[in-house]
Amino acid sequence: MALIVQKYGGTSMGSTERIGNVARRVAKWHAAGHRVVVVPSAMAGETNRLLGLAREINPHPDPRELDMIAATGEQVSVGLLAIALKTIGVDAISYAGWQVAVNTDRAYTKARIVSIDDSKVRADLDAGRVVIVTGFQGVDDFGHVTTLGRGGSDTSAVAMAAALGADECLIFTDVDGVYTTDPRVVPAARRLEKVTFEEMLEMASLGSKVLQIRAVEFAGKYKVKTRVLSSLTPPDLPVEIEANSGTLITFEEDQDMEQAVISGIAFNRDEAKITVTQVPDRPGIAYQILGPIAEANIDVDMIIQNQSVDGTTDFSFTVPHQELQHALGVMNNKVKEAIGAGEIIGDPNIAKVSVVGIGMRSHVGLASLMFRTLWEEGINIQMISTSEIKISVVIEDKYMELAVRALHKAFGLDQPAEGVATGLAVGG
Amino acid sequence: MALIVQKYGGTSMGSTERIGNVARRVAKWHAAGHRVVVVPSAMAGETNRLLGLAREINPHPDPRELDMIAATGEQVSVGLLAIALKTIGVDAISYAGWQVAVNTDRAYTKARIVSIDDSKVRADLDAGRVVIVTGFQGVDDFGHVTTLGRGGSDTSAVAMAAALGADECLIFTDVDGVYTTDPRVVPAARRLEKVTFEEMLEMASLGSKVLQIRAVEFAGKYKVKTRVLSSLTPPDLPVEIEANSGTLITFEEDQDMEQAVISGIAFNRDEAKITVTQVPDRPGIAYQILGPIAEANIDVDMIIQNQSVDGTTDFSFTVPHQELQHALGVMNNKVKEAIGAGEIIGDPNIAKVSVVGIGMRSHVGLASLMFRTLWEEGINIQMISTSEIKISVVIEDKYMELAVRALHKAFGLDQPAEGVATGLAVGG
Repeated sequence: MALIVQKYGGTSMGSTERIGNVARRVAKWHAAGHRVVVVPSAMAGETNRLLGLAREINPHPDPRELDMIAATGEQVSVGLLAIALKTIGVDAISYAGWQVAVNTDRAYTKARIVSIDDSKVRADLDAGRVVIVTGFQGVDDFGHVTTLGRGGSDTSAVAMAAALGADECLIFTDVDGVYTTDPRVVPAARRLEKVTFEEMLEMASLGSKVLQIRAVEFAGKYKVKTRVLSSLTPPDLPVEIEANSGTLITFEEDQDMEQAVISGIAFNRDEAKITVTQVPDRPGIAYQILGPIAEANIDVDMIIQNQSVDGTTDFSFTVPHQELQHALGVMNNKVKEAIGAGEIIGDPNIAKVSVVGIGMRSHVGLASLMFRTLWEEGINIQMISTSEIKISVVIEDKYMELAVRALHKAFGLDQPAEGVATGLAVGG
Repeated sequence: MALIVQKYGGTSMGSTERIGNVARRVAKWHAAGHRVVVVPSAMAGETNRLLGLAREINPHPDPRELDMIAATGEQVSVGLLAIALKTIGVDAISYAGWQVAVNTDRAYTKARIVSIDDSKVRADLDAGRVVIVTGFQGVDDFGHVTTLGRGGSDTSAVAMAAALGADECLIFTDVDGVYTTDPRVVPAARRLEKVTFEEMLEMASLGSKVLQIRAVEFAGKYKVKTRVLSSLTPPDLPVEIEANSGTLITFEEDQDMEQAVISGIAFNRDEAKITVTQVPDRPGIAYQILGPIAEANIDVDMIIQNQSVDGTTDFSFTVPHQELQHALGVMNNKVKEAIGAGEIIGDPNIAKVSVVGIGMRSHVGLASLMFRTLWEEGINIQMISTSEIKISVVIEDKYMELAVRALHKAFGLDQPAEGVATGLAVGG
């Protein structure tokens, strides 16, 4: 008998019929003797409807009141799921975040969970009930309703699992796990049975949509075994099969010996590149370039500064695509003359491709395999950035799919891994 | 400067544009120096949508979970209204029932308010804020969400006014006050400037839809001056005009000397009559007839037992129209033979017409004026029932409008009352 937290997304909760299916799935785990806590999202479309109402009144509504409104979507979901469970004979009870209580800081619309009081939930589990807790929300120390921001239900579920010391947190979603790369780009992409949370973190920040990055961070911090699996299988799929489906996000020490070197190829084309030429090479120049960008609230991802030649250098960085014009304006108005640079060049046609793997820590030669593979395909590398378990390159965006396919093959991800499947990838 | 509680119904809150109008109306009172607490209903249609979702899953959903779901409608409303007020520069804050807290008993879907903690509301009022509190809901002593049942927002507003010792509770609605009778039946019906809560109570229970009967009871118990007025006037109608519009529900001791004898004519055709003939006249017979009806959960309104002639009597009572077949079944199966009665006769074609007035306490001859008026119109009276401030008769339903018009005229309600307008009536 295990204590299991299950999270269901908005699509799974999208109609009363689908909520009935969720109830059957939960009832199956309960009948198998497990203690089950469920964290459902709002019904698909409901959060957007609520935020839309608020923005009809004011495009920038008061955040406290926005949270008061947005939190109702999940409150409806938990009540409906409790009714569905009771209807099929499973005792169940729903709680809003403030009832549990899920205590957060006061950062409306993007609050962070501070602590969870598990006493009510435990008492109900002890009484044999399925406990259903709203995702996405909590309550601050003044008793105001807060929300965790988009995708916050993933974080709620993992945090609840951490508070309860749950054996596993199951994230039911509309993909059946984490892949070595996007199967739409590489048909040979494979689902991974396991992936480490560090790899997942690198992939999530690179554009994976399987699981919210904050949920992954939480899982890592509190060592919550988290499994991403499909909610599209039949609700009466046997528990012993479902319990081993999807992808388990786990920890390095849990990994088998046959750990593959590289686990996945991530990519995105959400960024644009800005290059500043002929930058005088003197102390403080990076701050003088990027300070005004930070003040304008523009996120910067990759930053490259080359060795200077004859006292000047080229300085490049990437920003979100939709911020390119804004960033170019800042550079031309506030930076160019101030530092005495040459030209400011913006390039929206770039893509970032990354090779990710925890085995990178102990293996050499992976970067050169990546560079050789791209060279063999005739793809020019514009920028390179590395971390402990990842190598990222910026290339011209039209070569992105070609690069991903070539790398997926070159790193042996096209074949099933021996022993345990390993690796990691972007979501479907 | 007064402390005013304002309640707005679902129609007034029916769209973001209308919520903007409510905000302008509230802002006007706030600008005039008043301390304002607002209790809005859910947006029109929203409560039905939520209950409909629950009933799609189970026609008889768990009441605790139903309240969890239904309470969200008002939570959205308060948040939207707070945003609308802040958008036009009025500081405002919203609270759900549990945040205030509005403490209720544990009777889910029909909870009763036990107490209201006014400390947060007072602190916000002292800080110059408009305070917006969800209607229709509260929290029980276990921290579970409860709702007060349909129309409960009226009760919430009056209870909040009582807790705060408010100067007046304004119920904004889509009728412009209380009338001497339904203007659709009697075009000469007049709006009353004042009506006592006792009269309002008699009228409410007789079918008035202006104000929920529990709200009227609350107003009477805690002596809350309550005004029913139109939300369809321009939002910028001057405060001094709006403050005297509609109908004020007040207390006998507040009434002017010129109190009219009769204040209104109420009517309904929601009931059906059952007559049991040749009932043996012996002790316990009323219980033997009505006990099984009560056990079947059927409401009984009027009950008439005549003086017996030669040891048997006829016994009649009225039940809600939709319960007639059910009640007849009970009578035929459980009562008729048991007491040795003659026949059981059901009659769905009846109407009840009542003359209501606080002056009835001190005036005689009113019943005979009523009976004479009906006789002059050739209308036969089937049943009669009286209370301290009301006389009701049951007649054949096709004469209902005729009876109401004749009585409205006979009791002098067609002309404006001298001095203060008085009286009372069914809602529009």
